[in-house]
Amino acid sequence: NMVFYTHDNLSGNNVTAFSVAGLNGSSSSAGKFGTVVVMSDDVTKRPKINESDADNTVGRAQGIFVNTNLVTGLDTLLVFTVIFHDMEYGGSTLEIQGTDRFAYPHREVAVVGGTGKFRFARGYAILTTELLSGTDSVIKFNTTLRTA
Amino acid sequence: NMVFYTHDNLSGNNVTAFSVAGLNGSSSSAGKFGTVVVMSDDVTKRPKINESDADNTVGRAQGIFVNTNLVTGLDTLLVFTVIFHDMEYGGSTLEIQGTDRFAYPHREVAVVGGTGKFRFARGYAILTTELLSGTDSVIKFNTTLRTA
Amino acid sequence: NMVFYTHDNLSGNNVTAFSVAGLNGSSSSAGKFGTVVVMSDDVTKRPKINESDADNTVGRAQGIFVNTNLVTGLDTLLVFTVIFHDMEYGGSTLEIQGTDRFAYPHREVAVVGGTGKFRFARGYAILTTELLSGTDSVIKFNTTLRTA
Repeated sequence: NMVFYTHDNLSGNNVTAFSVAGLNGSSSSAGKFGTVVVMSDDVTKRPKINESDADNTVGRAQGIFVNTNLVTGLDTLLVFTVIFHDMEYGGSTLEIQGTDRFAYPHREVAVVGGTGKFRFARGYAILTTELLSGTDSVIKFNTTLRTA
Repeated sequence: NMVFYTHDNLSGNNVTAFSVAGLNGSSSSAGKFGTVVVMSDDVTKRPKINESDADNTVGRAQGIFVNTNLVTGLDTLLVFTVIFHDMEYGGSTLEIQGTDRFAYPHREVAVVGGTGKFRFARGYAILTTELLSGTDSVIKFNTTLRTA
Repeated sequence: NMVFYTHDNLSGNNVTAFSVAGLNGSSSSAGKFGTVVVMSDDVTKRPKINESDADNTVGRAQGIFVNTNLVTGLDTLLVFTVIFHDMEYGGSTLEIQGTDRFAYPHREVAVVGGTGKFRFARGYAILTTELLSGTDSVIKFNTTLRTA
């Protein structure tokens, strides 16, 4: 099992995720059906980003998420690469595809592949919301992998 | 083997799939190269949606499809999650990636992962068009999975 | 191992990849964060496209790429199907997901599935830039697969 946290900021001083398409074009809200968001989120080992905690940031989650719930706007299809920068997994990646169902405390997405130390990986990640503050969120990914 | 049907409606009273980007922005036609469509289609056990057939709807197919054929407009990249709502597979998902080549009677896409009862799944689905009526279609997915 | 080359042309007489969304809508540059490009690239066995080399083209790479690097614009998420047209693998496909990090001479993406002769495939591809000329590029994919 490997745990990491993604830090997604849709507004503020350090925006990491931008709408690029949707029913209202690139001004579409991430909370509405149809909106496509491109993200490059920090990935950390521990839930808080703390500037004095130098070895906490281990990579970035780079890809897209798409709002796919016609009624509540609370489901997002995730398709992204986790690119690890730290020493242990430097340069290795995990490939994620799945639907993050915000309305549920625990939800699950698939690990559909990987590279470097994660070649041939497949598995799943249990997602929980660690922090939700305005349009910023920290999501915990608890992953279980097979590479054989 | 597991069989299910997706019900995709691009127009009418019960639209389940909307263009959000393309060569003409969100007014792009799903039948033209470049168009990105976000969908949330009903998934059923039997081909017809019938309101008196209460246990027929087993989930939703939520994700995107993208027209990728420059010449004919008849290929679409599918990237979506099948979210099962029914009792047997409730909360489990399959992750699909592949190209649906409408010009062919039988075509094939990959199952690249899954969650819940489908953790570690990989496999393929044979697609056939069960119904095509204007811009509405019912596609049969005949899936073969391995989860070990 | 299987080697193939993708031929991506963002401008000129034979455009194979078009921006459809981004921070500036469908006029967004592929080199900027947030841009979504839909592609249908030629796939060849040998690096050069040469009209007298009739058996060189073996298929097409059809799907999307998305610029996901906020700072340099040099990372692109790839999600596409390689559709093989030639005799040996005719009709079979590989499903690719990963991030092509242009800044590096060698980079790696995942093979997350396949169809036809590549059913149950998973693996990885090492990418190198064979040619870069203006907005045209030829990328070599050296793939390692497991299908068991």
